[in-house]
Amino acid sequence: MDIRNLTQLINERKFSDIKNSLIEIQEADIAELLEELDVKESLLIFRLLPKEIAAEVFSFLDVERQSEISSLVSDNELEDIINELNFDDKIDLIEEVPANIVKRILQYSTITERKLINQFLNYPDDSAGSLMTIEFVGLKRGMTVNQAMDRIRKIGLDKETIYTSYVTGNKRRLEGIVSLKDLVLSDTEAIISDIMETDVIYVNTHDDQEFIADVFKKYDLLSLPVVDNENRLVGIITIDDVVDVIEEETTEDFQRMAAIEPTEVEYLDASTYVLAKKRLTWLVILMFSAYLTELVMNANNNLIMQFALAIYTPMLMSTGGNAGAQSATLVIRSITLGEIKFKDIFRVLWKEIRVGLMVGTTLGMLNCIRIYLTDKDIFKAIMVGLTLICTTTFAAIIGGTLPIVAKKLKLDPAIMASPLITTIVDVTTLLIFFKIATLILA
Amino acid sequence: MDIRNLTQLINERKFSDIKNSLIEIQEADIAELLEELDVKESLLIFRLLPKEIAAEVFSFLDVERQSEISSLVSDNELEDIINELNFDDKIDLIEEVPANIVKRILQYSTITERKLINQFLNYPDDSAGSLMTIEFVGLKRGMTVNQAMDRIRKIGLDKETIYTSYVTGNKRRLEGIVSLKDLVLSDTEAIISDIMETDVIYVNTHDDQEFIADVFKKYDLLSLPVVDNENRLVGIITIDDVVDVIEEETTEDFQRMAAIEPTEVEYLDASTYVLAKKRLTWLVILMFSAYLTELVMNANNNLIMQFALAIYTPMLMSTGGNAGAQSATLVIRSITLGEIKFKDIFRVLWKEIRVGLMVGTTLGMLNCIRIYLTDKDIFKAIMVGLTLICTTTFAAIIGGTLPIVAKKLKLDPAIMASPLITTIVDVTTLLIFFKIATLILA
Repeated sequence: MDIRNLTQLINERKFSDIKNSLIEIQEADIAELLEELDVKESLLIFRLLPKEIAAEVFSFLDVERQSEISSLVSDNELEDIINELNFDDKIDLIEEVPANIVKRILQYSTITERKLINQFLNYPDDSAGSLMTIEFVGLKRGMTVNQAMDRIRKIGLDKETIYTSYVTGNKRRLEGIVSLKDLVLSDTEAIISDIMETDVIYVNTHDDQEFIADVFKKYDLLSLPVVDNENRLVGIITIDDVVDVIEEETTEDFQRMAAIEPTEVEYLDASTYVLAKKRLTWLVILMFSAYLTELVMNANNNLIMQFALAIYTPMLMSTGGNAGAQSATLVIRSITLGEIKFKDIFRVLWKEIRVGLMVGTTLGMLNCIRIYLTDKDIFKAIMVGLTLICTTTFAAIIGGTLPIVAKKLKLDPAIMASPLITTIVDVTTLLIFFKIATLILA
Repeated sequence: MDIRNLTQLINERKFSDIKNSLIEIQEADIAELLEELDVKESLLIFRLLPKEIAAEVFSFLDVERQSEISSLVSDNELEDIINELNFDDKIDLIEEVPANIVKRILQYSTITERKLINQFLNYPDDSAGSLMTIEFVGLKRGMTVNQAMDRIRKIGLDKETIYTSYVTGNKRRLEGIVSLKDLVLSDTEAIISDIMETDVIYVNTHDDQEFIADVFKKYDLLSLPVVDNENRLVGIITIDDVVDVIEEETTEDFQRMAAIEPTEVEYLDASTYVLAKKRLTWLVILMFSAYLTELVMNANNNLIMQFALAIYTPMLMSTGGNAGAQSATLVIRSITLGEIKFKDIFRVLWKEIRVGLMVGTTLGMLNCIRIYLTDKDIFKAIMVGLTLICTTTFAAIIGGTLPIVAKKLKLDPAIMASPLITTIVDVTTLLIFFKIATLILA
């Protein structure tokens, strides 16, 4: 069944055909379709879905659309959806919907679950606690493999994963993990404590999601247990949620590197006001920092006037800025991936000095020749060429080292990216240019 | 066991203590340690590892270190490593090491495997073929769950995953998949064809890795079957390799957006020459494009000279550039995440016009006041203020729409990021500024 055919059926309002077609389509694809329709049509199609598919499709929807649908469906429909949702998806939904819907959702939860929901809502945003789910398989160390498999068969259907089970002891303390692979490949009478892995990698409820993503990547994990401050197992995090975290963190890095305050709202869903606000802070800071360039220009006004030097400043500044942005981007990304640490700062410095000189000399020579050919002025050609060598090297050094220093000072290295580097490089470029000009022309 | 204690033991050359400590450390952590040591020390420690751990640690090493160690170990040691490596890791290694080591590696492979290796080396870089592994569990549709479980127990140990099994029919055609979860939760006498999922999501050997990552994210998969042009199952791709792909593609985007030609080599491992070459192409292109700014400055030389206008150009250009980079970054990232498609171009345009005006007016007014206070020149204050409104709005529009157009033209939207946008905005800013200056001052 093709999604395009379905879109046509929707346009033609052939509801029974739509209903039949929906069964053959992957849940994720139906969700994508529902997100593209307007709310009313989306609800119309959603109601054509069989109950068990509906909840699955619902969990694939983005939170905005989930919230919209929740506010429009009847109490009975909402109850069906809520009962089928995984616990972590339920929490995500509650965090998003208006208070009256929260009330309706809580109404369909048991008292134990309501207590748990409250606990989860208290975990800091972006922490392990807010990422984890409580739906894992717990085992005891004394069980045999057979007993463990029986337990998995009994409770496994509603669990987020059955591929790793968690062995807890006294006071729910995490004692080990055992993979379904080990269970399947072990003798049925083997004892869990003999086959479980005791050297377990785990995180705390308050650990940051960026750290958690790094742990997953480093150890190639499918899931990861989360413990509280008393070392009690309280939940697990699975790889599919971590993939989303990686995307989210990357988006934040991109935004910070372009001097935008991070926002989790999708571009098309964000209001003009929010988009403007997120951009304005840094634009204002950078604009007022650029006042320094006015001071430098003012101080050299006579030189500029006498020799018409202003002509070259835009090209010099933009080339310096580009070179700085290149170094900064390479180094910031390497810091994020854990390839560059503070102790590497001198290696980076030495590399950037050489790369900067190599690139700067090439650019300087090319432009020297070009200016000589177009403007027939050997002095200006040499001045601009020399400035390019100095400014490119300086930009490379600043771009390469500032992010490392920022990281050491517990700042986000991404803040040190192109816009800030460009502003520093702009001022320096002008200073270098006028210094060289004075030396050559005076 | 703490990694820091181990580093100390290494410095003190206490080899038997090191050997005992290594057993208690996660393989991924040992690999990280080995990558930080120099090659000779790294080999020394590597040789202290028990055989089965050694191969595991080896598979966590980056390919450079793998290649270095492979060239230094004896034939026997190499054979042990090679035999323990997963097939996809083996292929990655062969692609990296010098020819004489490839010869040694092939020597320890069976004829069938050698044929397979040759086939894999022919898949295009970054394709599903080069990402996949052949180590999957294959089942037949007529098997019972019991028979299937027996088969998994027999062959599962060496497979990349046993959590999904692949059901093939005539001529190895993919007929369905069955998860270990379904096997465990089904009746032991159930027939595979009755419980398998037939609506399988799969990719072709030639599909690009970026597309594959999107499929994994969309459907929340743990593994994905790969078929050839005749629909025969040839391999599977697992989530841990996809996480690496996502990181790799993100790094490429960051590099392209900073006008660097993408490279997969880690920063600290790249030579000065390579780093310089990857940066130079775009720097030269952008530098020569900036020649346009010189032309504009030249054409307005009288105006600049008469009213000392050059002073404001650096701030105007950098503010415009920053605004353009913000819009471009937001839109490029949204395109990558599939949130913005070509049909959204007018929505983006309309949003950017409003955001640009809102941001531009704020910046314009702030700077108008500032210049009036510092320079006591109401005409210049108004000129600069008006220019900021126009240039910021223009930058927002260009930054928001060019990446979408680029995508439509099958270019990488990331190419349209800040450096290129900045160059366009620089020229336009100058044109706008001098036009407004002429209108006000003339």
